[in-house]
Amino acid sequence: MAKIDLNCDLGESFGRYTLGLDAEVLPYVTSANIACGFHAGDPTVMASTVALAEKNHVALGAHPGLPDLMGFGRRKMQITPAEAKDYVQYQVGALAAFSQTGKLHHVKPHGALYNMAAKDYDLARGICLGIKAVDPTLILFGLANSQLIKAAQDVNLPYAQEIFADRNYLADGSLVPRSQPNAMVTDEETAVKRTIAMIESQSVTAVDGQKIALKPDSVCVHGDGAKAVAFVQKIHAALLAAGIDVKAV
Amino acid sequence: MAKIDLNCDLGESFGRYTLGLDAEVLPYVTSANIACGFHAGDPTVMASTVALAEKNHVALGAHPGLPDLMGFGRRKMQITPAEAKDYVQYQVGALAAFSQTGKLHHVKPHGALYNMAAKDYDLARGICLGIKAVDPTLILFGLANSQLIKAAQDVNLPYAQEIFADRNYLADGSLVPRSQPNAMVTDEETAVKRTIAMIESQSVTAVDGQKIALKPDSVCVHGDGAKAVAFVQKIHAALLAAGIDVKAV
Amino acid sequence: MAKIDLNCDLGESFGRYTLGLDAEVLPYVTSANIACGFHAGDPTVMASTVALAEKNHVALGAHPGLPDLMGFGRRKMQITPAEAKDYVQYQVGALAAFSQTGKLHHVKPHGALYNMAAKDYDLARGICLGIKAVDPTLILFGLANSQLIKAAQDVNLPYAQEIFADRNYLADGSLVPRSQPNAMVTDEETAVKRTIAMIESQSVTAVDGQKIALKPDSVCVHGDGAKAVAFVQKIHAALLAAGIDVKAV
Amino acid sequence: MAKIDLNCDLGESFGRYTLGLDAEVLPYVTSANIACGFHAGDPTVMASTVALAEKNHVALGAHPGLPDLMGFGRRKMQITPAEAKDYVQYQVGALAAFSQTGKLHHVKPHGALYNMAAKDYDLARGICLGIKAVDPTLILFGLANSQLIKAAQDVNLPYAQEIFADRNYLADGSLVPRSQPNAMVTDEETAVKRTIAMIESQSVTAVDGQKIALKPDSVCVHGDGAKAVAFVQKIHAALLAAGIDVKAV
Repeated sequence: MAKIDLNCDLGESFGRYTLGLDAEVLPYVTSANIACGFHAGDPTVMASTVALAEKNHVALGAHPGLPDLMGFGRRKMQITPAEAKDYVQYQVGALAAFSQTGKLHHVKPHGALYNMAAKDYDLARGICLGIKAVDPTLILFGLANSQLIKAAQDVNLPYAQEIFADRNYLADGSLVPRSQPNAMVTDEETAVKRTIAMIESQSVTAVDGQKIALKPDSVCVHGDGAKAVAFVQKIHAALLAAGIDVKAV
Repeated sequence: MAKIDLNCDLGESFGRYTLGLDAEVLPYVTSANIACGFHAGDPTVMASTVALAEKNHVALGAHPGLPDLMGFGRRKMQITPAEAKDYVQYQVGALAAFSQTGKLHHVKPHGALYNMAAKDYDLARGICLGIKAVDPTLILFGLANSQLIKAAQDVNLPYAQEIFADRNYLADGSLVPRSQPNAMVTDEETAVKRTIAMIESQSVTAVDGQKIALKPDSVCVHGDGAKAVAFVQKIHAALLAAGIDVKAV
Repeated sequence: MAKIDLNCDLGESFGRYTLGLDAEVLPYVTSANIACGFHAGDPTVMASTVALAEKNHVALGAHPGLPDLMGFGRRKMQITPAEAKDYVQYQVGALAAFSQTGKLHHVKPHGALYNMAAKDYDLARGICLGIKAVDPTLILFGLANSQLIKAAQDVNLPYAQEIFADRNYLADGSLVPRSQPNAMVTDEETAVKRTIAMIESQSVTAVDGQKIALKPDSVCVHGDGAKAVAFVQKIHAALLAAGIDVKAV
Repeated sequence: MAKIDLNCDLGESFGRYTLGLDAEVLPYVTSANIACGFHAGDPTVMASTVALAEKNHVALGAHPGLPDLMGFGRRKMQITPAEAKDYVQYQVGALAAFSQTGKLHHVKPHGALYNMAAKDYDLARGICLGIKAVDPTLILFGLANSQLIKAAQDVNLPYAQEIFADRNYLADGSLVPRSQPNAMVTDEETAVKRTIAMIESQSVTAVDGQKIALKPDSVCVHGDGAKAVAFVQKIHAALLAAGIDVKAV
C-alpha cells in the first residue's frame, strides 16, 4: 500500500504578529515544521506550537531559516557552508528544547536556505552536518532529487524526499521559479490529481513534457490562510480515497 | 578538604566583534558560562567556544540572557516568568546542540536576568522551570542565598551558590549595586584573601559589618581583559596554596 | 468653537507580518503616529505608510519605541535618558526621511517608552531633547498632565496633551494600569460621551471620584481591528455632531 | 593643482563592542562614512561618532548597509532595488538626525551593498533614488567607473568616484575579489606610489596589464587597527609631499 506524509510549516507567528492557522491545519497533516526564531517564530511561539503539535500527535520537525526576520528568510544570503551548519545546529537545538522528549523527528530548511541548498551541494552538506551534529537520527526533508538529498546520502543522514502539490517542475527536477508565470499549479483539482499520480507513478511530468523519476516521501502543504487549509483537507481526503496511507515518514 | 569552582563568562563575541580573552582564561577556570545569542554570542562563536571549552576540559554551561544585544543584556526588561522560562529553554537548547555529548553541565543566567531573578522569586522560578524542562540534571548557578537558589530548591533543580571575589555585599546577601561607590573590592590582595575566607568560614561580612552565612560552591571570575586574566591566575594559585581544591561543581 | 485632534498609531506591520487596518482608519483621524522600526515597522512599511498618510492629508508623526520587536515595545526596559534621546533622535530622523518634505509634524513615544516617560521626568526630558535635536518645531504628543508635558515645557518644545477615550484615570492623572479590572472604559457610548465631556469641561473624573483638570489637544484612537475602526468612525461623527472641530494640532 | 579626498568608515562599534580607532584616524581623513545601525553602529555610537567627526571638521557621510549585523553587512543578500531604496533612505535619515545642521555631505554604501551595486545597475539606481529622496544635494561615493556612478549620473545625483589604495583592479575596472590571491596590494610603499600615480595619471593598470582610465575623487582608507592608521598617516603625508591637495569633495 502506497503511503505519504503531509508536512506543513507552522509556528510562524512572532511577538505581537500572528501568522498561519496552525490549530486548523494540524488535524490534517502528519508532520509539522516549526520555525525556530531566525526567519519567524520566537521562544514563546515555539513553546506553544510544539505543545499544539504534540497534542495533535504529528511528527515534530525544526524549520531552520536564514537570520532575516525582515525578509522572512526568503531572500538569498551568501552564507558559507560552515555558517549554514552553525545556524542549523543552533536552531534545531533551540526547538528540540521545547519537545517533551527533548527529541525531534525531522528538519526541513526554510525558504531561501532550502532553495539555495537544493542547488548548492556544499551548502546542503553544511546543513546536513549541522543536523547530524545534534542528532544523527533526525530525518532531513529536502526537495526530491536535489543536492539536499545527495548530501544527506553522502553524510549518512536519514532523509525524506519532498514533492510540491501546487508547483510545476523543470526538467532538472527543480521547481519552476515563482517569478515565472507557470510556477504554480493553480487549479486545485489538477493539483490533487497530479499529487496522487506522482505518488503512484513515482514520477512527474516537467513543463517541457519530460518525465522525471521521483520517490515521494512527503507532500508540502500550507496553513497560511482559509483557502490553504481547505486545500489540505481536500488533498488529505483525496489521498485516503485513493487508498494511499497518510502517515509520518 | 575545602573545594571551590571558578566560573567565567565566555563566548561573548558576536560576528565581526571580538570580546574576551577566552583562550587565555580557560586554563585557570573550571566552569565556562557560554553566551547563547540573545545578549551576546552567535552560532559561529558558540560553536568555536564550546569546542575550546571542551578542549580545556571545563564544565560546560549555558549563559542565557535577555533579548537585548544592544544593551548586552545588562538592562532590566520587564519580562514575565513565562517569557523567562521560554527564553532560557530556547537558549539552553541552542547551546547544548554544540556540545559533543548534546548535554551541558550547568546554566547561569546573565546580567540583568541574573540580577532581577536574584530578587524576584517568580522570575527565578520561571528560569528554573525552563532549565528543568530541557534537562532536570542541569545545575543552576545563582547568587548565594538569593531567590534563584530558593526557586531551584523549590522545583527540585540542582544548584550551585555563587560568590563574587570583587564585589561587596549588603546585609541581605545581595551585591552592593555597581552604581554605589563601594560596589567593588578594588584591591586584588583583599579580594583574594576575602574569597578564601568566604570559602573557609562559610560567611562574608557585609558593608554594614553584619556577618552573612554562605555556602559557596563557585566563584565568578572574568576574562574580559589582560588585568582580569591576571587576577584569575592569581586567585587560582592562591586557592591552591590555601589548600582549597579548585574543581567543577 | 472647541477643537480636537484624533491620533492613531499606524505602520505597525513588519516584513511578512501585517497589523492594523491603516487604510480604513486613516479617513477618520487627523494625526498619524508611524512606527519607526524599533518596536514595529520596517523601512518598506514606513515608506508605504508615510505615502498613505500623505495621501490622506493627515499630520505626519513619528512613533518611536524601545528596541524590542519581540515585545512590541510594550515591556519596560531600563534605558538611560541619554539612550532615550539617541533612540528617539534616530527613529525620528529615519521616519522623516520618507516624508515628501523631509519634515514631520509631531512625535509620540510608543508603549512602554511613553508610559515610563509619563512618570519619569529624566526619561521624558531625554525624549524631548532627542526630538528637539532633530527639529525644534516638532510637537511632542504626551499624556495630559504627565512628566512628558512638563519636560516639553521645560525644554521649550511644542506639545499636545493627549487623552484616552477608552481608559479610566487615577487621581494623579495617570491611566489605570491595564493589569487592573477597571482599566478600560468598555462601553462605547460611555467612552464617546466621556470624551466629549473631557473636551468641553476640560476635566475628567478619576476612578476615585476626584475631578482632574485637563487641557485635551488630541484623543488617542486605534486602528488594529474592525471594531476599533468602527469606534473611530463613531467618535469622529459624535465629535462633529457635538460641534467640536476635528483637526490636527 | 591635483586634489583628492581621503574617506574612512567610522562608527562601527555596537553596544558593548568596540571597533576601529576612530579618534586616531580622524585627523588624517577628510570624509567620514558613519555606520547607521544595520550592519554596525547603534544610535549611541552614531551620536558620539557624528560629534567626533564634526569636531574634526571632516565631511559627514552616511554608510548604510544591509540588515545583517551578524555578517557585518559583508554577505550578499538578494534584496530588490525598492528595498535598497527604502533601506538607504531610512539609514541616511537616521544618521542625518545626529548632525548639528540636520544635513549630511555624502553617502557611501557599505560592504556587500556597495559591491553588489557596483555591478548591478538596478540596485545602484535604487540606492541613488533613496539618497535623492532624502536630499538631492548629497554626494554618492561609489567605485570609480561602476554601475553606482552610472546610476548617479542617470538620476542626476552628485557623485564622487572612489579608488582603493590597497586593492588590485581587473580589466573591467572592478576590484580583484578578496578571495583571490592577488586581491591586495600588500606593500605599503607600492600602494602609496600607485595611489599618487592614479591621481596624477587618471588611470590604473589592471592585473592583466591593461590600462584603465579613472577620475579619482576620493581614496578609501581604513582605521580598524594601529597598522591601518599608520598607513593613513603615511599616505596623507605622501599626498601632500606630492603636491596633491587633500580635501573633501
